[in-house]
Amino acid sequence: MTIKSLVLVATSLLLALTGCASSISKPENQGRPNLILIIGDGFDDQQITIARNYLVGSGGELLLDQLPYRGMVQVQAVREDNPNEPNYVADSAATATTMAGGVVTSRQRVGTTAKTDEDITSMLEAAQSAGLRTGIVTTASVTDATPASFVAHVSHRFCHGPDNMVEQGARLSTATTDCSADYKKNGGRGSIAEQIASSKLDLILGGGARYFGQLAEDSNDTTVLREAQDYGFRTISDRAELKSIRQNERILGLFSGSTMPVRYRGVNGGQADFLERIDGKVVWPEPFACEINPASDSMPTLSEMTVTALRHLENESGFALMIEAASIDKQAHSRSPCGSIGEVEQLIESLQAAIAYQQTHPNTLILVTADHGHSATLIPDISGLAELEYGSPGRFARIRTPEGGIMGINYASNDSPMWDEHSGVAVPLYAIGPGIRDIPVFIRQAEIHTISLQHLGLTGR
Amino acid sequence: MTIKSLVLVATSLLLALTGCASSISKPENQGRPNLILIIGDGFDDQQITIARNYLVGSGGELLLDQLPYRGMVQVQAVREDNPNEPNYVADSAATATTMAGGVVTSRQRVGTTAKTDEDITSMLEAAQSAGLRTGIVTTASVTDATPASFVAHVSHRFCHGPDNMVEQGARLSTATTDCSADYKKNGGRGSIAEQIASSKLDLILGGGARYFGQLAEDSNDTTVLREAQDYGFRTISDRAELKSIRQNERILGLFSGSTMPVRYRGVNGGQADFLERIDGKVVWPEPFACEINPASDSMPTLSEMTVTALRHLENESGFALMIEAASIDKQAHSRSPCGSIGEVEQLIESLQAAIAYQQTHPNTLILVTADHGHSATLIPDISGLAELEYGSPGRFARIRTPEGGIMGINYASNDSPMWDEHSGVAVPLYAIGPGIRDIPVFIRQAEIHTISLQHLGLTGR
Repeated sequence: MTIKSLVLVATSLLLALTGCASSISKPENQGRPNLILIIGDGFDDQQITIARNYLVGSGGELLLDQLPYRGMVQVQAVREDNPNEPNYVADSAATATTMAGGVVTSRQRVGTTAKTDEDITSMLEAAQSAGLRTGIVTTASVTDATPASFVAHVSHRFCHGPDNMVEQGARLSTATTDCSADYKKNGGRGSIAEQIASSKLDLILGGGARYFGQLAEDSNDTTVLREAQDYGFRTISDRAELKSIRQNERILGLFSGSTMPVRYRGVNGGQADFLERIDGKVVWPEPFACEINPASDSMPTLSEMTVTALRHLENESGFALMIEAASIDKQAHSRSPCGSIGEVEQLIESLQAAIAYQQTHPNTLILVTADHGHSATLIPDISGLAELEYGSPGRFARIRTPEGGIMGINYASNDSPMWDEHSGVAVPLYAIGPGIRDIPVFIRQAEIHTISLQHLGLTGR
Repeated sequence: MTIKSLVLVATSLLLALTGCASSISKPENQGRPNLILIIGDGFDDQQITIARNYLVGSGGELLLDQLPYRGMVQVQAVREDNPNEPNYVADSAATATTMAGGVVTSRQRVGTTAKTDEDITSMLEAAQSAGLRTGIVTTASVTDATPASFVAHVSHRFCHGPDNMVEQGARLSTATTDCSADYKKNGGRGSIAEQIASSKLDLILGGGARYFGQLAEDSNDTTVLREAQDYGFRTISDRAELKSIRQNERILGLFSGSTMPVRYRGVNGGQADFLERIDGKVVWPEPFACEINPASDSMPTLSEMTVTALRHLENESGFALMIEAASIDKQAHSRSPCGSIGEVEQLIESLQAAIAYQQTHPNTLILVTADHGHSATLIPDISGLAELEYGSPGRFARIRTPEGGIMGINYASNDSPMWDEHSGVAVPLYAIGPGIRDIPVFIRQAEIHTISLQHLGLTGR
């Protein structure tokens, strides 16, 4: 398999900004501000370390590692039934809403407040009001929690399309249960897909075609996709069309039914599983490497979508672009380490494209962060205990790295067949661009919103 | 219970150094350099987040969060049988050796090279050779892997005293098995305790009295403690004596038999345990809070030892001091979240004392880092899955925080009754003092050695 990131390692670019670089002072004289916010879903230091070891080796450096700023961000969420009480482990909906809008909310909520269900204006909506261009790029369905929180307002993240508005999963007092109040017939704004269709975005690229194929709530024969076209979107659906778009078009690109296929998978279907024991002794599983997932071949890469978005959004008034590498978390939920590794690689390639843009447009602030961490953990590939009858009680994989080592990766936060849990660990923030010296080494997620609006010269929300 | 750290939150000190602080320029004109290296054993972002949520609440800030520099450090170790192959998950011995001496080694090794078993000169030994004063402060036995790696050279970390030189635990090709070659009769330097006794340290404080009570290898009636006295150490054993020491004395303080008792424990013995299930449904355990561990009452705190050490080491030529908060990891191994939280609190109090010193001695570089991460993970306190028959397959605790939230803390990397595993995640580096703007946001552990020697004006090792 080809590790594309070897190229990345070589590109030290102009990143010798690690001192008190004077080259980034007075950004206000360098044209209208642009913001590129890159969110890795589940992109915590476990995932970064695992990806680093795999992609460039334990002695290597990722492009991330060369950025001039690195800090930590406290993940934020509250309980639905008592918004004064913290919920220490968040989900993408709550945290993307907090980053997008600066208001902390409860799990599952998209662009709405906990308990009181009021709309929270996102930074992209604020930018639109100020005449900036705005865009979203994701490897998830464009209706997924993270992108949705930048463009839509519903009480439950699973309300992707008009047919998905009731009977959602969560049953707990910490989160909402459905979004039937968001039906248009009930005075709401409709499903996430419908809200995207009627949004003012200049560009939105990702997966999720299936939700746009549903009939719009207020129609018997019009799909949400058609509705989007009626609202002025040009809709595209494959990689080739990405190259054909013109800047005066508003673009809705849907390249797969739901989440876009990930870049890597384990050789021979390798992923984490429960340890086998024979006569009480652990049978340590065979290590496996990662290989290209053929299903990803026809997909545009996150980097290709990023390049397209940057070219499309560039204008005299500035822009705000949110980019999500969604499957770090999704693949960790399903205990597929290679899937997560490939998605970190995609994030880094997207960052590389963003930095290349920033080098010629210095009033561009690039922030790279995560919505939340995940419980997947890099542990010894064989227990250090002499007895050897002990090992992980959860799902475990041994990954052979190109440099010849073996990583043990443990998924043991939930024995459900459905998923492993998020973690409440603080997440990374990397930054390059104007004003980064003013960012403290520790912030809360709502401050991502503050920093973004300040850079864009916008106030309020 | 009294949360001492509330005091810490209030002390923002002079930490408005977050910009490009000019106040820390030209340190070379401000007297001889001092180095304070604070190592939290197992002090990763999971442990920091858990401690932050408990000690100051999810909206609070730890003293750490106000430091002007924060980066990440790649943990380093290699295999004993093949030092060219990385071992992605390290132990305290290998990593402390790497930080102390700048050479990457294999698990279990203390101040010696993998496979070839050559001595690696530590930064404290280099400082001694240059006429600087040196000290070690730890909450572990002073013979434990982290402190030992700064003063001793043996092939296995468990060789605490003359009676502990053979039949060690590890059986794997990734690590050494014993240290019989280190017997003096075999041409070695003897046990760790004996090497401390004959060391040139000006001060070493911690636990481990039991190992100094053993008879020295080359004697039938002299304990290692007596040997230390013969080499010129004044030995002390309780808190009161800490206040009585004079600067012209060399001090060996041993306050407990082995590891010093930790500050907090779970109320009613609360710690993580396997989930109970009745009729297939998880019975979620009662949340518990932390309370003072009475056994710690008579112990000097890490902060008290730090203050004593700084007063003792101050001199015209500069000093190097290594401080370890050892039980973050030890308590995580034994799945006792309150023990780890209290030890993070001790680390922060020690940092507070170090920063207070640094404010009046500005040519003092303070580095705060970890030797390695731990697999303990902050996860939802109740599974978000509607079914609720699913939960952690490992040991799990629910901790009630003073602000009224509940944290779920998961220990599920090994089902052994003995311990949970380390993690290979990259670990934090915080810094304050001269030269910190030159530290990249990502380094490897060997660079801790480089940065330290550069600050101290020492070259080579």
